[in-house]
Amino acid sequence: MAFLFLTGFLVGWFARPSGVQHDHANDSKLLDFLNEIQADNIRQYLRKFTQLPHLAGTEQNLKLAKEIANEWEKFGLDSVELVSYDVLLSYPKPEQPNYISILNQFGNEIFNTSLTEPVPEGYEGVSDIVPPYNAFSAKGQPEGELVYVNYGRTEDFFQLERDMGINCSGKIVIARYGKIFRGNKVKNAILAGAKGIILFSDPADYCAPGVDVYPSGWNLPGRGAQRGNVLNLNGAGDPLTPGYPAKEYTYRAEQDEGVGLPKIPVHPIGYSDAVHLLTLMCKRTSISAPHRIVRMNIYTSNQVTRIYNVIGRIRGAVEPDRYVILGGHRDAWVFGGIDPTSGVAVVHEIARSVGTLVKKGWKPRRTLVFASWDAEEFGLLGSTEWAEENAKILQERAVAYINADSSIEGMYTLRVDCTPSLHTLVYDITKKISSPEPGEETMTLYDSWHKRDNWTNERNAPRISKLGSGSDFEAYFIRLGIAAGRARYTKNTKTERYSSYPVYHSVYETFELVERFYDPSFRRLQAVARVRAGLIFQLSDSQLLPLDCVEYGAALHKYTLNIEAIANRHPDAISRYNVSFDSLLNAVKNFTSAAQAFHQRLNELDRYNPLEMRMVNDQLMHLERAFIDPLGLPGRPFYRHIIFAPSIHNKYAGESFPGIYDALFDIENAPEQDKAWDEVRRQISIATFTVQAAAMVLMPLA
Amino acid sequence: MAFLFLTGFLVGWFARPSGVQHDHANDSKLLDFLNEIQADNIRQYLRKFTQLPHLAGTEQNLKLAKEIANEWEKFGLDSVELVSYDVLLSYPKPEQPNYISILNQFGNEIFNTSLTEPVPEGYEGVSDIVPPYNAFSAKGQPEGELVYVNYGRTEDFFQLERDMGINCSGKIVIARYGKIFRGNKVKNAILAGAKGIILFSDPADYCAPGVDVYPSGWNLPGRGAQRGNVLNLNGAGDPLTPGYPAKEYTYRAEQDEGVGLPKIPVHPIGYSDAVHLLTLMCKRTSISAPHRIVRMNIYTSNQVTRIYNVIGRIRGAVEPDRYVILGGHRDAWVFGGIDPTSGVAVVHEIARSVGTLVKKGWKPRRTLVFASWDAEEFGLLGSTEWAEENAKILQERAVAYINADSSIEGMYTLRVDCTPSLHTLVYDITKKISSPEPGEETMTLYDSWHKRDNWTNERNAPRISKLGSGSDFEAYFIRLGIAAGRARYTKNTKTERYSSYPVYHSVYETFELVERFYDPSFRRLQAVARVRAGLIFQLSDSQLLPLDCVEYGAALHKYTLNIEAIANRHPDAISRYNVSFDSLLNAVKNFTSAAQAFHQRLNELDRYNPLEMRMVNDQLMHLERAFIDPLGLPGRPFYRHIIFAPSIHNKYAGESFPGIYDALFDIENAPEQDKAWDEVRRQISIATFTVQAAAMVLMPLA
Repeated sequence: MAFLFLTGFLVGWFARPSGVQHDHANDSKLLDFLNEIQADNIRQYLRKFTQLPHLAGTEQNLKLAKEIANEWEKFGLDSVELVSYDVLLSYPKPEQPNYISILNQFGNEIFNTSLTEPVPEGYEGVSDIVPPYNAFSAKGQPEGELVYVNYGRTEDFFQLERDMGINCSGKIVIARYGKIFRGNKVKNAILAGAKGIILFSDPADYCAPGVDVYPSGWNLPGRGAQRGNVLNLNGAGDPLTPGYPAKEYTYRAEQDEGVGLPKIPVHPIGYSDAVHLLTLMCKRTSISAPHRIVRMNIYTSNQVTRIYNVIGRIRGAVEPDRYVILGGHRDAWVFGGIDPTSGVAVVHEIARSVGTLVKKGWKPRRTLVFASWDAEEFGLLGSTEWAEENAKILQERAVAYINADSSIEGMYTLRVDCTPSLHTLVYDITKKISSPEPGEETMTLYDSWHKRDNWTNERNAPRISKLGSGSDFEAYFIRLGIAAGRARYTKNTKTERYSSYPVYHSVYETFELVERFYDPSFRRLQAVARVRAGLIFQLSDSQLLPLDCVEYGAALHKYTLNIEAIANRHPDAISRYNVSFDSLLNAVKNFTSAAQAFHQRLNELDRYNPLEMRMVNDQLMHLERAFIDPLGLPGRPFYRHIIFAPSIHNKYAGESFPGIYDALFDIENAPEQDKAWDEVRRQISIATFTVQAAAMVLMPLA
Repeated sequence: MAFLFLTGFLVGWFARPSGVQHDHANDSKLLDFLNEIQADNIRQYLRKFTQLPHLAGTEQNLKLAKEIANEWEKFGLDSVELVSYDVLLSYPKPEQPNYISILNQFGNEIFNTSLTEPVPEGYEGVSDIVPPYNAFSAKGQPEGELVYVNYGRTEDFFQLERDMGINCSGKIVIARYGKIFRGNKVKNAILAGAKGIILFSDPADYCAPGVDVYPSGWNLPGRGAQRGNVLNLNGAGDPLTPGYPAKEYTYRAEQDEGVGLPKIPVHPIGYSDAVHLLTLMCKRTSISAPHRIVRMNIYTSNQVTRIYNVIGRIRGAVEPDRYVILGGHRDAWVFGGIDPTSGVAVVHEIARSVGTLVKKGWKPRRTLVFASWDAEEFGLLGSTEWAEENAKILQERAVAYINADSSIEGMYTLRVDCTPSLHTLVYDITKKISSPEPGEETMTLYDSWHKRDNWTNERNAPRISKLGSGSDFEAYFIRLGIAAGRARYTKNTKTERYSSYPVYHSVYETFELVERFYDPSFRRLQAVARVRAGLIFQLSDSQLLPLDCVEYGAALHKYTLNIEAIANRHPDAISRYNVSFDSLLNAVKNFTSAAQAFHQRLNELDRYNPLEMRMVNDQLMHLERAFIDPLGLPGRPFYRHIIFAPSIHNKYAGESFPGIYDALFDIENAPEQDKAWDEVRRQISIATFTVQAAAMVLMPLA
């Protein structure tokens, strides 16, 4: 009987006076689980899953879905299913390749960019390698003068237009990759009036000093180029079915009304080709060269295509209606050696390890959901459509979402981005895992991480950052308000200045790249696997949810001071327009008090009363949900989290209090100052309400 | 210990093979509770609370709030608090009264409408009786020719413009009250280009044949007039703070940007005055009479004013985090003899009766919330602001909302409007209550109701209708998706053609009106009190929530056939634009299967397992929530229920599948037929998704 089981389960419970409280009884089970995760298995899975390209919407990626589903079943998951959607994807035309030409004064092509990347050794016979392209580029053959726009950031265009007086209207712009999400570059180019945009990988951004290019090293070869979509979806998922799952019955907008589709051609090139285009400009960006014109030849086309998520479940033994989700994408631009298969292999090993426990009779308290998402590279489509289809259930039942995209992007230390309420759990888990670094055999991952990336400006602990976007947690965290986090191995950001990793989204992302350079022992991937596994284990199996609301209070306080400091850069306006952060600071104070009182009450809890535990856990689960505003952020209806959103200027970066931040952005140049500051006041009011409402979630129940 | 208590509690449980299952053990407690409710107490409370006017925002209404709070505490509620908001209200200027004049050719006033209603006997010394006015009317003194627009309905304006070629642009229109919400009349007048609108009570609509005018009978005297707001809020609450509670810290829009405020003057008159204006037109609406012009003199002004809700709670003994709300408004236009005090008195008697049980040691399983709302008459403001402030909590915790506005509007039988999942409970409860009708002493309320209002076109049962709007359940049901219902005593709608009741919103709504005419024995109010009380008792105390999802399936099926039939009036377009209801019908079928399987599984439930019960109850609670679309209906972001919304053409009426219905409305006259039918297909797709998602809520948990 469930009650007797539960009673037994509760024995050994102990309460810490503050902070997150764990089941002590679970600790040995947790360690069993973490120890089950083996580096060699991850190596094998990575090897197996990177033999062929797995582009979303292709036969090969469906085959991989079936293979994974098959194995998850064999591992011992209770149920596994393929869930399909028909979403808008974008492919180059095989018979009419994309390229860019330099034209002479007679309109003849005197230089054309490469059509493909040289295929790495060992993969020569592989077909279906999609050439470098920017998915969802508009079709077209625009011709024009070229303008270099640096990284294509908002501030780059400001500088061009305001300081240098350079107008991009009717021009073709060329921007280097890096710093911000490429979709933002494209949006900025469109706003500036450009009729096309070329994206290139600059060695300054994609080559580490002293490192050879692939295959001798892990730098990007000159003819390598970064694929990637250039949508500005703002969380909408499938561009034709915003807000609703792209099922057979679903109404689809006309393609020219799709969300976030750029209206101009976009194309990526490597630095070997870029050199030719850049010399055109002779370093004089402001001087037009009418006899040297560039033409983009883009034939990429969009088509509604079926994609497949794999969804596996282990039914919770006590609370089957509480879900902990581990999700990562399966689709890759080509081989996906790092992105995403270093994540796929890790999820696979976690599924196998959980299955081993299940076969020995263990079941998690709550339901575990494993997800292999499709079409992440095309705008987080698989994960967003599933979130849309299951929104009503997830809203009521999802405890946490842990993301499992690429497990590694550097060879230095751990990187974690997560919601504040997961901070404590992340620290606790990393203290139970060994460092993967040679020479640190006796050190914990926590200590190794702490040593390498000490968050000294905040506290004496390793750095944890805010979630931005650019991976599949987006719909779960930013739209639905489900506590979320991600962990991976990263570079030393203090010394390594290149963006992501050099061969990102190129054909050179192979198994060998990881095996030779990033993680020869596969112990780094193992460590990442154990972090992700530890998170889902504790979230699914602890009697009391390991979510720390006091940490959230501290984060809110910090973000409030930050945003107040930004506003205070305009002292005159602040006083003229009567802008005050007092109400928000008060709400944060109320939140902090409520969180502290909540923690206090945990000590008085009757832990043998399953309903009392459930009610407290429901408060913790719904805390993140309380930050969701159904009205969304201005102009971004699917970004609904009032505390965190991807920056308007860079989807990859997380912004805190995004509504206020965006209202303040470049406010000194707003044409109507009173309206602009009115909007700041409105956004402060919304933030105040939201924080106050979140405090109410933590208050006594009636 | 809570568990032992619970075990005891569960003894005696029995399961019916289908339908809603009740605690048998509770039945005697329920009857104790219902028997506690006494007609004489209701009479006393009504007498006490109708001595003085209780207009929202006045000292007198705050005083009443304190009095009620005080008594609720004495009755034995666990906590009672006053919750205030600062909302936009609207009052006439005491020193500059509103009126309408007929002007002669020299522009002199040759007739003025009355400034006040004659005060009824016994109330002569009462000050602060607000004269008839339409709250939120624009200020202004427009002059113009008068056009009679019948009831001012959409179809009335269509007829004028399309069939009779009458243009209302620049005219002052005069509409009779009745049939639809007055705010819709005003909106239609604005759309037609009118520069003012006069509303009058036609004896055809406000006098029952053969009945004297008050005080000899219950008909409206000639100089009586209907007050009422003329907002088109579409659920926004306070016009200046849509979406957020109107607290001190809240950002307020400029008044000219407030939601739903009419841009033209509006004024109500009685039929004695109306006769003079109508004869102006000599029955020839199309002929202009330039020498006889009407002028409206309107000085009503809007001001942000503090209002007060009273919120009382009895903490649930087992699930304090589950709320059952009984709410009704306290503010009245004048004495509020019927509206709302016949509801206030009933809520008061219910609170007293619950308190009596509590004093004897009983506690409900779930938390009971009693609400006395303020400023309902000004656009459901008190209830909507509280819903906004508590939205995040209510979303997760509210089981049901029972509305308690006016308890009586006729002398014939019961009237119930509720969500389909409450049908079964309403029938069950009315079978436990006696008929209040003389000569029916041995009959149940159910049988009396059944005899008088048999729903033969649907089934062999008394009629239950859809919820529309016009009272405080709106934010709870239509915005938040909380199962809701209302019950009152009503007229015989087959024979009594007048709208609401004749003296509605006039100064003649007194205690004596109810005591002399509507319910001399107060047994009708007692019966209504018992229905409302029975609902909150069973919802708060049954172990298994008495919500019937199979009934919801039947209702969805019916609504789908209805809307399909409406679409099928355009057979050519249906086939040309490929419009099909198959997907929706399929979703309804899936819903029905899921509901039936859910009911089946209830039989296998381990009723001694508190978590199992909680999980099943959570599914039932969240069912209504699943019909909420966070994106809202087109142009109505706060009407978010996909199955039910107030009609765009009449706020009082409920429309099923409102998105589809509105897309189809007058579609034959849409300028772009393809776009219009595209929108129909889009709305069918949204309905399909929503019903399918609701089915998923009822499916097995993992």
